[in-house]
This record gives sequence, C-alpha cells and structure tokens, in this order.
Amino acid sequence: MFYHVKELQFNARGSKPDPRFARMLLEQFGGGNGELKAAMQYFVQAFACKQAYPDKYDMLMDIASEEFSHLEIVGATITMLLAGVNGEMKDAAESSWIGEIMKGSGAREDLINQALYNPQFCVLTAGGPTVTDSNGAPWSGAFVNANGDLTVDLRSNIAAESRAKIVYEYLLKFTDDPCVQETLKFLMTREITHFQQFEAALDTITPNFPPGVRQEDPRYGNKYFNMSQGEDATGPWNEGKSTRTQEEWNRIDDPLEYVTQTNGLIDVQVDEGIDAQALEDKTEDLSKERSEEVKSAVPESNIQWSDYCQQKSRSSHRSNKKKVMA
Amino acid sequence: MFYHVKELQFNARGSKPDPRFARMLLEQFGGGNGELKAAMQYFVQAFACKQAYPDKYDMLMDIASEEFSHLEIVGATITMLLAGVNGEMKDAAESSWIGEIMKGSGAREDLINQALYNPQFCVLTAGGPTVTDSNGAPWSGAFVNANGDLTVDLRSNIAAESRAKIVYEYLLKFTDDPCVQETLKFLMTREITHFQQFEAALDTITPNFPPGVRQEDPRYGNKYFNMSQGEDATGPWNEGKSTRTQEEWNRIDDPLEYVTQTNGLIDVQVDEGIDAQALEDKTEDLSKERSEEVKSAVPESNIQWSDYCQQKSRSSHRSNKKKVMA
Amino acid sequence: MFYHVKELQFNARGSKPDPRFARMLLEQFGGGNGELKAAMQYFVQAFACKQAYPDKYDMLMDIASEEFSHLEIVGATITMLLAGVNGEMKDAAESSWIGEIMKGSGAREDLINQALYNPQFCVLTAGGPTVTDSNGAPWSGAFVNANGDLTVDLRSNIAAESRAKIVYEYLLKFTDDPCVQETLKFLMTREITHFQQFEAALDTITPNFPPGVRQEDPRYGNKYFNMSQGEDATGPWNEGKSTRTQEEWNRIDDPLEYVTQTNGLIDVQVDEGIDAQALEDKTEDLSKERSEEVKSAVPESNIQWSDYCQQKSRSSHRSNKKKVMA
Amino acid sequence: MFYHVKELQFNARGSKPDPRFARMLLEQFGGGNGELKAAMQYFVQAFACKQAYPDKYDMLMDIASEEFSHLEIVGATITMLLAGVNGEMKDAAESSWIGEIMKGSGAREDLINQALYNPQFCVLTAGGPTVTDSNGAPWSGAFVNANGDLTVDLRSNIAAESRAKIVYEYLLKFTDDPCVQETLKFLMTREITHFQQFEAALDTITPNFPPGVRQEDPRYGNKYFNMSQGEDATGPWNEGKSTRTQEEWNRIDDPLEYVTQTNGLIDVQVDEGIDAQALEDKTEDLSKERSEEVKSAVPESNIQWSDYCQQKSRSSHRSNKKKVMA
Amino acid sequence: MFYHVKELQFNARGSKPDPRFARMLLEQFGGGNGELKAAMQYFVQAFACKQAYPDKYDMLMDIASEEFSHLEIVGATITMLLAGVNGEMKDAAESSWIGEIMKGSGAREDLINQALYNPQFCVLTAGGPTVTDSNGAPWSGAFVNANGDLTVDLRSNIAAESRAKIVYEYLLKFTDDPCVQETLKFLMTREITHFQQFEAALDTITPNFPPGVRQEDPRYGNKYFNMSQGEDATGPWNEGKSTRTQEEWNRIDDPLEYVTQTNGLIDVQVDEGIDAQALEDKTEDLSKERSEEVKSAVPESNIQWSDYCQQKSRSSHRSNKKKVMA
Amino acid sequence: MFYHVKELQFNARGSKPDPRFARMLLEQFGGGNGELKAAMQYFVQAFACKQAYPDKYDMLMDIASEEFSHLEIVGATITMLLAGVNGEMKDAAESSWIGEIMKGSGAREDLINQALYNPQFCVLTAGGPTVTDSNGAPWSGAFVNANGDLTVDLRSNIAAESRAKIVYEYLLKFTDDPCVQETLKFLMTREITHFQQFEAALDTITPNFPPGVRQEDPRYGNKYFNMSQGEDATGPWNEGKSTRTQEEWNRIDDPLEYVTQTNGLIDVQVDEGIDAQALEDKTEDLSKERSEEVKSAVPESNIQWSDYCQQKSRSSHRSNKKKVMA
Repeated sequence: MFYHVKELQFNARGSKPDPRFARMLLEQFGGGNGELKAAMQYFVQAFACKQAYPDKYDMLMDIASEEFSHLEIVGATITMLLAGVNGEMKDAAESSWIGEIMKGSGAREDLINQALYNPQFCVLTAGGPTVTDSNGAPWSGAFVNANGDLTVDLRSNIAAESRAKIVYEYLLKFTDDPCVQETLKFLMTREITHFQQFEAALDTITPNFPPGVRQEDPRYGNKYFNMSQGEDATGPWNEGKSTRTQEEWNRIDDPLEYVTQTNGLIDVQVDEGIDAQALEDKTEDLSKERSEEVKSAVPESNIQWSDYCQQKSRSSHRSNKKKVMA
Repeated sequence: MFYHVKELQFNARGSKPDPRFARMLLEQFGGGNGELKAAMQYFVQAFACKQAYPDKYDMLMDIASEEFSHLEIVGATITMLLAGVNGEMKDAAESSWIGEIMKGSGAREDLINQALYNPQFCVLTAGGPTVTDSNGAPWSGAFVNANGDLTVDLRSNIAAESRAKIVYEYLLKFTDDPCVQETLKFLMTREITHFQQFEAALDTITPNFPPGVRQEDPRYGNKYFNMSQGEDATGPWNEGKSTRTQEEWNRIDDPLEYVTQTNGLIDVQVDEGIDAQALEDKTEDLSKERSEEVKSAVPESNIQWSDYCQQKSRSSHRSNKKKVMA
Repeated sequence: MFYHVKELQFNARGSKPDPRFARMLLEQFGGGNGELKAAMQYFVQAFACKQAYPDKYDMLMDIASEEFSHLEIVGATITMLLAGVNGEMKDAAESSWIGEIMKGSGAREDLINQALYNPQFCVLTAGGPTVTDSNGAPWSGAFVNANGDLTVDLRSNIAAESRAKIVYEYLLKFTDDPCVQETLKFLMTREITHFQQFEAALDTITPNFPPGVRQEDPRYGNKYFNMSQGEDATGPWNEGKSTRTQEEWNRIDDPLEYVTQTNGLIDVQVDEGIDAQALEDKTEDLSKERSEEVKSAVPESNIQWSDYCQQKSRSSHRSNKKKVMA
Repeated sequence: MFYHVKELQFNARGSKPDPRFARMLLEQFGGGNGELKAAMQYFVQAFACKQAYPDKYDMLMDIASEEFSHLEIVGATITMLLAGVNGEMKDAAESSWIGEIMKGSGAREDLINQALYNPQFCVLTAGGPTVTDSNGAPWSGAFVNANGDLTVDLRSNIAAESRAKIVYEYLLKFTDDPCVQETLKFLMTREITHFQQFEAALDTITPNFPPGVRQEDPRYGNKYFNMSQGEDATGPWNEGKSTRTQEEWNRIDDPLEYVTQTNGLIDVQVDEGIDAQALEDKTEDLSKERSEEVKSAVPESNIQWSDYCQQKSRSSHRSNKKKVMA
Repeated sequence: MFYHVKELQFNARGSKPDPRFARMLLEQFGGGNGELKAAMQYFVQAFACKQAYPDKYDMLMDIASEEFSHLEIVGATITMLLAGVNGEMKDAAESSWIGEIMKGSGAREDLINQALYNPQFCVLTAGGPTVTDSNGAPWSGAFVNANGDLTVDLRSNIAAESRAKIVYEYLLKFTDDPCVQETLKFLMTREITHFQQFEAALDTITPNFPPGVRQEDPRYGNKYFNMSQGEDATGPWNEGKSTRTQEEWNRIDDPLEYVTQTNGLIDVQVDEGIDAQALEDKTEDLSKERSEEVKSAVPESNIQWSDYCQQKSRSSHRSNKKKVMA
Repeated sequence: MFYHVKELQFNARGSKPDPRFARMLLEQFGGGNGELKAAMQYFVQAFACKQAYPDKYDMLMDIASEEFSHLEIVGATITMLLAGVNGEMKDAAESSWIGEIMKGSGAREDLINQALYNPQFCVLTAGGPTVTDSNGAPWSGAFVNANGDLTVDLRSNIAAESRAKIVYEYLLKFTDDPCVQETLKFLMTREITHFQQFEAALDTITPNFPPGVRQEDPRYGNKYFNMSQGEDATGPWNEGKSTRTQEEWNRIDDPLEYVTQTNGLIDVQVDEGIDAQALEDKTEDLSKERSEEVKSAVPESNIQWSDYCQQKSRSSHRSNKKKVMA
C-alpha cells in the first residue's frame, strides 16, 4: 500500500518562472531515463521476488517509493517553473495582448513566449507537466525492464541509474536558478546512491555471472569477431583474458573466411583450457538450485500476498523493528 | 513524498495459477483504463491545483495514492496467477519436457501452455506483469488527461472511473476463483466510490458549465445538425431544451442547404431568447474571477512547494488533526 | 456510407500565414483531445449500439460526422496558415536565400523561419498538417474510448467534449487573426453543444449509475481512505452523503491501522443503513434486463447491417421524414 | 463537410459469429494498411492540393470518402462477427458458467472462448472493434504519408492500395462464410480500382520522374553498388539501361575499393552519355514552373477555403452538374 | 552476415556546426521515410524471397546494405553538425555561462542555444543523433512494409524511395553548407536510382497486376463513386478506360441512389465487355503457378539458410564471379 | 560503410516449421531486448566517440555489426519456422480447406492454425518476421540508449546484454528442435561474450564512477531512506560501507520525521568522514580533463569523418593490418 505525505522529500523551490528549462526537465519526468521509469521499473521487478527474495523486495520497494517521491519533486519543480501560465490561461477574455507575445515585449509576454517552446504547456496542460519527454513523446511502458531474475534486473537498474545521473548532470548546465540547481544536485546524488545499493545487492548473489542460470556454449564464448575493418584497435576486450570467464581472447580477423571454413561455426572446436563439461555441470547444478529456491518459496495454490497478523504484532512493537529485520 | 507499507490495501489472494486470466487482468495494470492510468492522471492533475485549490489537491492525492495501491494489488494478483512460471523458467537445464508442453498433458505443461497466450509472461518477465494492456501494447503517457482546469479534469476523472468500473465488471465474468472475484469486487467498488467523490468535488465549483471560462458563441450553441441521414431519431438531445444552457434545440435537417444559405454559418443570427451580451459579460466576469483566484494563490517568484514548519507542528499534534482541516 | 461535399461546414478563412499558430492548432487535428479523436470515438462506439439502441446510434453518427467535418475545418485552417510554404518548397533550385532565412530579414524568410518551429511543416509535408499533436507525437488508436456500454461511453464523451472545449479556449489566446478566432469560437461552441447532447442522452437511460450493470460491494462503497496526509481537507467528497448511492461517508483517517485490523479489509462489515441484499437483487434484475435488451435486438445468425428496402421507400418520401422518426 | 447515410455502401452481412476472424479482420480496421489509414492518407493529402490542383483534390476526396465508407463496412462486419458478445457481457450476474468457458462445451462458451484470442473484445469493447491492428497495436498517425507533392503522394497511394489488396487476398483464405467472403471481395476489388485511378492521375502530370522537382546528381544516378556479396545476380536493375533516365548501369563490384579510389565518391566523374547541364537546367525550369503553378493559385492573405456562392448556384442547377465539371 | 568498414560510402563532411539543421536532418535518420526505415524494409522483405527468388533477394540485400551505409552517413553528418556539444557537456563544472546562453552572445552560446531547439541533443545524447524524427517521435517498427509478395513489396519500395527523395529535396533548401549539400545530393540521387532498380525488378514479374494473385470481382472494378460532391472533375481516372484492366469507367454520380437500387451493390451486374470467367480462371491459374513456384523452392523440413560449401568454392574463384551469376 | 555477405554468421537451420515458436522468437527480432535494439544501440553510441575514442569506436562497431548479423540469423530462423506459410498464402484460389483449419485435422491445417497465434504471420507478412515483439508491439527508437558518455553507455550495454542473454535462456525452453537450440545457444553465448567486452572497455576508463563527470552532493550520498515499511531487511546496501564511495551507510528509518526536521533535507550536514571539498575539486578536475579530451579531438569546422588516403595505403598493405592497430 502506498501512502502520501504532502511534504516533498526535498524542499524544492524556484526563484522565478523558466518555461524553457521546464521543457528540458520534462526529460526526467516522462522521459526514458526519468523518475517515472525508475519508479515503475523497481516496483514491477519487486513483484517477482517478493516471496523468494524478501530482502531484495524490501530494497526494491524502498527505492521505488523514493523514485515516486522524486517524480513528485520533478513535477512540482516543473509546475513552479511554469508559475504564471495557469493564471494567464484562465484569463480567457483577455486576448488583445497576443500581438505583444509575438514581440516578447514584457515579462508576461516573455513568459508565454518561452512556454510556447513546448506549446502543450499552454494549450494542453495550462502550466503543468505532461507525461512525456522533453520533445513531447509520451512515456511508454516499454521503458520498464523487468525480467524475473535478479542477476539481470539489478544490472538493468545499475544502468538505469547511470543514465538518470548523466541526464541530471547535463540538465545542471541549463539553469542558473540556485534553488533548482540544489534540487537537481540532490536528485543526481540519489542516482549515485542507488547505483551503489543495486551493486551491493548484486554482489550478495553468488554466482551472478553469467546473468541467469545457463552457462555459455564453450565454443563461442572467447571469440572476438573483427566485423568493422580499418583502424582496428586492441584492448582488454580482444586480447588477454575475458573479465569473468577468464578465457583467452581468440580474435577472428577475417570473420567471413572463418565462418566459411567452419561450416557456419558448426565445426568450431572448444579452445584448449576451456572445460566444456564443467560448464554443463554448472548449468545443471545452478538450474536445480535456483529453481528450488523459488519453488520452495512460492506456493502454487492458496497464495496470499500479505500477512496482516504479522503486521498487527509488528505495529504494536514498532520500537523493536530493527530486531525483527531479516 | 510517497511511503510504502508492505501490506496490500486489500488482502488479495489466489486459489490457483491461471495465466489466462492473468493476461486479461493486464488490461487493468498497463491498459488505457487501468490503475496506472488512474493513479498518474490524478497525481499529474494535482500539481496544477496545489496552491490555488488545496482542498481539491488533498482529494486528488488521496485518490491517486489509493490508485497506486490498487496498481500494486493488480500486479500482485497477476503474479500470484502466474505462480509456478518463475520457478519453471529458472530450471534452465530441463528442456526435455517441451514436447509435453505442446500436448498439455500435465499440470506443469498446462500452466506453461496457458501462459504462452501471452508469450512475454514466459520469455520476457518469467512470471511477472508487463506494463502493457492485455494484448501487450505498452502503457502510454498519452493516457493521462490533465488540463489545468478542475471543471475539465474532474469530468475526465468521472469518465475514467466509469471505464475502469466496466472493465472490472467484464473481468469478473472470466474467473471462477472466489479469492480473485473478491479482489475484483473491491476494486470495482472503489471506482464507483471515486466517481462520486469527483462528482461531489465538481458540484462545489460554481459555475462549472461550460467547462473552463469562456462561454459559447450564441449563434451556434443550440443547433443540431442532422449529419447522418436515414432512420433519424428524436430525443432530448435534439428537441426541447438543452440540459445546461436551457436553449431550445434548433434542428437543422438539411445541413448542406443551411450552410450554403448562411455563407458557411457566418450569417447565422442568434435565435430569439438567447442573450448574447449576457454570455459575453459572463466570460469577462468569470475570466477575471478565475484568473484572480489562481494569480493570488500562485507566487511568481521564490516559490516553495512545501512548508516544513507547518508539518513539524502538525506532527506534534497528530491527535488534533481533524480540527485543523480546511 | 459517408458523403463529402466540398463546402466546409463553417466558412473557415485566414487573414495571413501564421505557421506558429498552425503548429499549436495541430493539437486539435491529431492530438489526444482533437477532432479526429472525437470523430473516431463516436463512430466506433456507434457500432455496438446500432441494433439495440438505434436512437443513440443516430445521435452518435450525427455527431461523429460533424466531428469529421470539424477535422476538415481544422486541417483547412492549418493549411491556410501555412500558405506560401508549399510554393517555396517547390522552388527547389532557389537555395541562395537560406542565409536570409536564418536572419529572418524578409516576409518570405519569416514565414519559413516560423514554420521551422515544427520542421515537418517544411521537410515532410511542405505546408500541410501531420496526423500528430502540436509536438509531433502521432495520433494513436488508444485515444479512442469505446466500451460497449452507453452509460460508460456517453460519460467518456462528456469528458472528451470538456477537454476539447478547454483546448479551444486556450488556443483562442494565441491568434489575433479575427477570421481564425471566429472559426475557433464556432468549434469551441460545438463542443459545448455536444456535451449537452450526450448528457441528455445519458439522462434517458434509467438507471445509469453505477455505469454498467453490477452494483457495488456494500462493504467498500462509502469508505474514504485518507491516503495523503498533512493539510487534510473535508468536503462533500468525504463528509455527508455520497452523491448517488446516498451513503454516509465513512472516513478512514489511518488506513494502515484500519487495513491491519480488518485483515486486509476482508473483515469489514457493511455499515448500518446499507442494504446489501437490495444491491445484489439490483445486479441480478438489471443483468437480466440489459442483456435481454441487447439479445433480443441482436440476431446471432444471418445478420444484416442495413435494410435497403426501407431506404428505398424512405427516399421516395423524404418530405415525410420527421414522421417516421423513432 | 462530411455526411453520413445509414446504409452501408455494400450490403455487408454475416452468417454466424466468428470472433477469431473478427480479430484477423481488425488488421484492415486499425492496421497499417487498413481502411482508416487509406481514408486519412487521401484526406490529408487533399488539403495541400485543393487550390492548385482542384481536379486531383476532387479525386482524392472521392476516394477518401469511399475509404471512410469501407472503414464502416469493416467495423460493421467485425461487430456482426462478434454478435452475442455484448449481450453476454451485459449478463453481469451470471458467472457460474465460467468453468464451462474453459471447457468450451457449448455454443455460448465457444463464442467467448474464441473471442478471448483477443481479450479486449470481451473485457474492453464488449463486442466492438478496437482502433488497433490484429495484434492489438494501436493505429498510429505515422501511418499517413502526405508530402505535399502529387508525384510522391500518388505513388504512396498506389503502394498503399497494393498492400491493402494483398491483405484482403490473404484474409479471404480464413473465412468460409459466403457473406463475409462477398464483402471481402468487394473491398479487395475496390483497392484494385483505386490503384488504377491513382495511376491514371499520376500519368496526367508531366514530367513525373523523378518525384518532386530536383534532378539527380549525374555522377551517382547510374551506379549499382554490389553491397551484398555471394550468389550475385544480374537483371535489368544492374545491367542494360535504367527504366527512366535511360542511363547505362555502371556496376561497382567492389564498392570498398571504388569508394577508396574516388576519395569517398567525391572524385567520381560523370559517365559518358549523361548530360549534366541538361539536368541542371531541368531542375531550374521545373522549379520555376511548379512553384509558379502553386503560388499563382494560393493567395497568401485573406484566404477562403470554400465559395458558398458557387454552391448556391450549383445546388439550384443540380441536374446540370456534369456540364460544370472542370 | 554484415561487415562494416570504417570508411563512409560517401565522403561526408561539415563546414561548421549547425544544430538547427541537425534537427531537421533527423527526419532522415529516425523518421518514417528515412534511411533506417528503408534499410529495414528491404532487409525484412528479403527473408521471404531468399529461397524462391534469389535474384530479387540479391538486389534487396544490395540496396538494404547501401541504406544502412546511408544511415551511417546521415548519423555522421548529424554528429558533425553538433560538433562542440559533447565537449561542452563534459565541462560539467562550468555553469556560470548559462546566462550567456540565454542571451546567445557568443559562438559557444549560439551553438548551445540552437541545439536546444531539440533539447535532447543537449540533455539526452550530448551531441549525437536520437532514433527519432525531427520532432523527437521515436522510429517505429510499423514503418516497415513487408507483405511476402514481390508485386506488393516492390511497389512499397518505389513509393518509399519517392518519399525519401522529396524529403532530401526539401532538406536541401535549409543548409548553405556546400559540404552538406553535396552529401544530400548524393543521398537524394541514390533514391532516384533505387526507384528505377525496384521498377526494373517489378517489370520482370509477369503478370504483376493486380498485386498478388487474386483477380477482381468483375462487378465492382470499373465503378467510380462520386463521393465528394461539388466542383466535380473528370479525368482519365473516371472517364475512358482504366489503366490496367482496360475497362470502361462507369461513373456513379449519385452513389446513395445507386446503392439503394442495387440492394447494397449485391444486385449489380457485370458490365458488358468484362469477362468474369476469364478472371476466375486467371485467379486459379496464377494461384497454382505462384504457390508452386514457392513450394518447390522452400523445403518444409531440414531447412538450411546458407550453403557454406558453395561459398568456399566461390571464394577460391573470386575472379570468376560474374560467370556464376544466375 | 556496411557490407553484406550472403552466408549467415552462424549456420542456422530448422528441422520443421514451428509457427508458435516463431512468434516467441520475435521477441529477439523486434522486441525491446532483441538484436535490432542491440545493433542500433551500439551503432548510435559509436557516432559520439569516433573522434575522441577511436578504440572504443572500433569495438562498438565490431559488436554492432555482429548484432546486425545476429538480427539476420533470428529473422532467417523465424522465416524457416514459418516455412510453408508463404506457399499456402499464394494459393489464393484454394479456400475450401478453411473448415479444416478450424478443426486442425491435417499437417497443413496445423501449420496455419499455429501461425494464427500471431495472425500477422498469415494476413500481413505471409510467412516473414514483423518488426515487433512477440505480442506484435512495434520496435521503438526509444529502446536505444545512447548518452554521449562511455561510462554511461557501456553500462547500458552491459545491462542490455544481460537482458538479451536471459531472454535466449528462457526461449531455449520452448523448442525441442536441436537445430534451433544450437542457434539459440550460439546467440546466447555471444551476449555473454559482449558483456565481458563492454566490461573490459569500461575498466580502461579511470575513474568511471560516478558515471559522467560531476561528483555527488556529499550530504545525500550515504543516506538510505526506509520508504517501504514492514519486514525491513538489512544488507550491504544499507549497512556497512557503500561499494564505490566507501561511505558509511546512514539509514533513515523514519523518512518523514527526518525530512521534517531538516527543512526538507536542506539543513542536512555532511557526515563525518566525507570530504566535501575533495569532491568539488574532483568535479572540476575531471571536468577540465574530459572536456579537453573531447575538444582536442573534435574540430569545430571543416570536419571530415573518413580519411580515404589512409585507407588506400592500408588496403595495399592488408597483410600488415595487425601491426598498425592502435
């Protein structure tokens, strides 16, 4: 269950209207890396792990709820940056000033003129946010990545936080309002924090590579195909050992020839030093372990999501909360 | 700021997995009339009225928060109806049973077989909801209607609740799980409740018709154009008086002839009994009143969204809350 | 069958090109509250009620056809506001003046310069409308709400008309072209008219609340959950009686405690004064009545949509049309 | 202005419900090659040519209106194929039969069971069409191609008709209802007809190749780059002369080498037999001609779309209509 | 398999940054008629004809690969036109100059100021392209037309090339950078070339009209419905003979009357001179021929896409390539 | 420039048609984690780093090209799994068998019957892939994450590879065709490989945390807000030190109280042990370094993307390629 309290998590303020920056800030309201995406992503991921991984569920819901709170901060800031628009729009009878807008000759005219960079601020929302990115493209459910596996989902989150962080970093260059800058710095910082939380959670899962359960086909894991020719470069991504499987990189300089010679890679042999059987065993063992982990925690009939008795006892002992933590 | 408590607002349960119904229920998770749409719509509308209409803001945020809580209930139910899928998917090594799936010969096979009505339940989310409708079309920010005017927004909400209600009514016919039926009845009932809340709020605004501020052009308000010919019908929508402006309907049976004779309606005269000047005056008066209402409440510089001092005092007197209500 | 006549329903004109306003006006061509949405919504709703409710079918198709005619007016106006763009674009050989465009030093340059606020006016349509909103987001079939139940659909329409009305109201502030203002006033007025038509039609359906057939679960209909805390407000939406069911509001100030005490609302009792049995009976009676209404009118085999014989006789007696109305 | 008459253009009927085919048929209602796309495409294209090319405007609007009429036929057919669904959905109280649906044991159950292939037919529209394709993806304004140039637009239409034709051809294989087959054959045939109408119109424009005004860069028009190697084929697309410019194909067998040798094609010389100056002259002449054509017909101020006087006179002489045709 | 070489197919360059034009050019990167659409369309069409029509497969893949190469050219050009943005964005600490941006007083400020016409160039991509059109609407898979029939697909391609050509023609008017103009002229010319290639390929298929296999219903193919009345025009699209079937146009001036008299067209008779039986026979013959063509080439089991042996032999005889062409 | 060779990178084959699995496999063709997304993401990211980071550019283009090659493998496999559909669809005259399809009584009928799980396989593409996910939702340009900063982009890629990997893992459970399994294993393995390549590349950038340039606001980086209450858990994400900044977690158990006490976090003090000045210095230093890195490599005028001279010399010394690698 979600609660709301009217106080923002952060004391967001605005020195003066700035519709142009309001438009940019939409990127973090309804854009692909924005707060709604983050909130919904963690919230949706949480469903799949509530029963089997309650500690991760707790973390995901803590952060999801904070992201909803950030969404509110961003929306409130956009609304403050559009202060004045709603009042003007209500003044329906007054239309003689339209010529003035075109000339941008006064403060009121400048305000509207700037707001028209995103015409929907005037003719659709009259001074509130839209659930779109900074160009007006609607938020999409497809932004949300939730794949029912924590070794994948947590990595999706680390990347999502990285993108959200850089967008705030970029945004910070386009406002000189110290209040707004302070808010942006808070929001940007929290992305750095969440990054580390998701990373710490990922580290508690062993093994967490490769993501999921199934191990690689040993014939293909260490090949580097040089598909883009001219000014080729080398680096630890195609020479030395791979970061995780610690296999020696085998660089295929002429992929066409290689593919042809190997009957479309079918005839490729496992390189020396790679233990195919071990990989197969690992898939099987992990398969058993992980499916058991989930199956033992998720009943298939008479399922109940919440346990209100537990809550009743908890709420009468709120002071003891820390002790009952998992 | 949003809080989350782990208990669902309603004790949602599931007797047994039912992936087929899970797919249908997605309509209320990520569909155009679903809980996310409702939650986001009221939440976004609330920004524009926080300062000028704090009582409506309170109501919108109460209901928005409840809708987020319903979203959680729907997501939890979908997850319970997919119980077993996640565990199967983790069993990566076991693939010999795929032939069985095709035949649907056992309980496990039936489960997966049904889940494949929406293949993403297996190959994308492994047993959790997607942020889509029942056909897999992603939720869109364009679902949210928020126009910066309560006489419009509250009507959008009444209609949204009506649609959400009927979808739950329809859904109720497709599950025979008594637990799920109970949950659906709760959710359906709340749409009926919210409908009445929004209606009550709309009634406190005078005048609230026409929506917005500007009155009609008196020449065109009472015309009924018979644009679809054959088996014409009459009813209070084209004979007698109109519901709000109480103007006598003037039915144009042959629109083409009428349009031609009036130089494209330019030469239409105001019908007797309609007071053009009164309408103009009303636009002007309301224009002044409504814009003043907003302008007086919304500062244009040094704007602060929350007042933490007030909260501090409030929280120390929580028992007196009712007394300080507006 | 649709016919077209080349005359517009309203004599739309334009005093001079104004690409900037053309961009804003796109909101009503391909935007979520625009004329295409309205036309398609009523048209699609009409299918489901043609047989069982022919009078509503007639009204929906009258208004749908008018909205298509309005779509044409809006498109024509946008095209007129972009007059000059198409001619310039055809002048492919002339490119020396591009520097001038950037400086905006002449009338021609100003025209193009303004058009570039929406670059697609130049590089995609060369002076015509796009089927998008004012920010270029494409029209979506998801804008259309049609739920196969008139107590729902008519409410969707009342809300849609409200939104369309306010957008025209807002738009009116951004043009000082008297011709365009006149057109906008006509279009805006018709939304007010349609609102009243839909409302009148809804009033002829008894009962029309709750929308659909099924009545509320009597335990949950009168509860107000105070989910957003701080600066709480009271109003007829949480004190006194509800607007339709006339139940006394029961305000839950601390939802978490309430939910916990009631085992997730499962143990809630019906409040005094609410007749659970009556509600159940009403669902059953209405269920029988409404399904019978439809079933008796909709054959399930050898279905024919139109009756051309009737038309033949009608067209030979066109002067008697009013008499044969239902 | 659009009119509607209640009779369908074609006497569409249905022998019995077939929700499965209704789902497939959605492809032509709200799909990318369907009737709404066609109707909207021709309608939107028409705006740009009304003044300068009134004969093409007439043709486009004739066909657009017919396509709207076809959209109605498709929607009506879908509704007939879902006959019975709406009545069932209104029967809200009856839910004991849900188990039966799962077993599909009776006619009613089969009906609903089939409808659930597209769950929105039951839980969203209750027996009417959605504005989506057969998989539920919403219609998009991006389907509409309108580029302000008839040599382009008419070709877009020829292709659109080709696609619509093949989809009807494919659909015909999935129904054995003779009524529905007849309707599909009518609709399919009309696509063939429209194809030829657009082609005939294109032929009246001289020159119509290349589309638009500007001629090719003579260095690059006759080159064929062999970018996909292995099993190369020859044909009139890379040997002999090109279809329109009648230039000899110059096949580049090793594009990388060629690009390198020519400094990224910058140093390519015009092949013998190609007259660069003539191309440049043609661009200039056509540029002048086409822009003049448009500019002379499109006033840039005091623009009026319709001329009602003309209509008045016309309507009083309806019997003479053919004589006043352009 | 795709290869990449680092050299562009065309030596694209930029004289100076021009973010405004970069925004317009996005239309050809991620817009509906742009290079990604073209590349993907031909690539996807190619799958269906690889086995039965290897010569067309070769051509489609040649052009698809060239379009991917053009996509790269367009993306590189956009990046060059945004030169300077990425460097500025990395300068995170420097924010004092924001006031300057607003005034646009220096080169650096002008650059950013112009980039903000599309704010995502600054706050999302920091100087690279987005996969959107010029207004920021994302590229959609629905842009791709591939219908499994070459008589349809090639026509889709002719139209697609026409649209791409005109967009480049329009774009050419908005840059005065000679380097960029040269690139655009190259790209525009290639659309003209591809048009002719697709046309030539279409001409090798006999018959290719109507698209697909099934012939028209002879009763409806030659009717012209005058659905848009007023200022009617005549032309070869409604008088004389149709372009392909060479049937005499039969113009229906009053469609409503005609439809009524013919019982919704059911009673229409085949016009003299049209041979219904011949059409039916043609459908049957072509049906047999075309399905046989495909079925004989496409095995239904143990299917293999590539034949590496052939490649081995081919690569050892590269100099003889032309001789083995089909 | 992209080249294509007709041989697939992997010898994809299919034992027999399986339209049901073809539908699932669409998830990796046009879905949000599929091959097109991957290919386009790396390709688009590459533009921004070509000049300043040519080694990363090489790697990104190597992998992008491989992903395009994988897209081809997936499309070819889908086409093989639909073998037979195209031939059936061409058999337009044969429609008597439709009743058989419904009964699914023969091999041919089963084939089509299964294909209809995604009706577009029959009525739209006739046996080829659509550019959609497994539910038919179109691919969107919004899937592509490219933010102009390698510390962000490489993390986006690591996450993208993780998701692609798990989807292949899930898919592997739904086919028992050994050929298809082999192909899927190859594709799955390559995601594991690319993951490690991106990780290795990220490791070469120092520092790479936080992503981007700007450091955290030291007051907010180490706070853990317990926003979801009940069954709280502890772990390295809220106790001990954070993974990167190595700050001690400061857990806020009652966020509302904390926020209120700190005036909306404005009054929060930097915790002991955190050096605010050092962070500020780091932002400034890194800001200078990174912007210089880019600015020195990216000319702002007379920019040229490719250097053909270099290529000429390179191609004449192809045997020496390895020696000239950076």
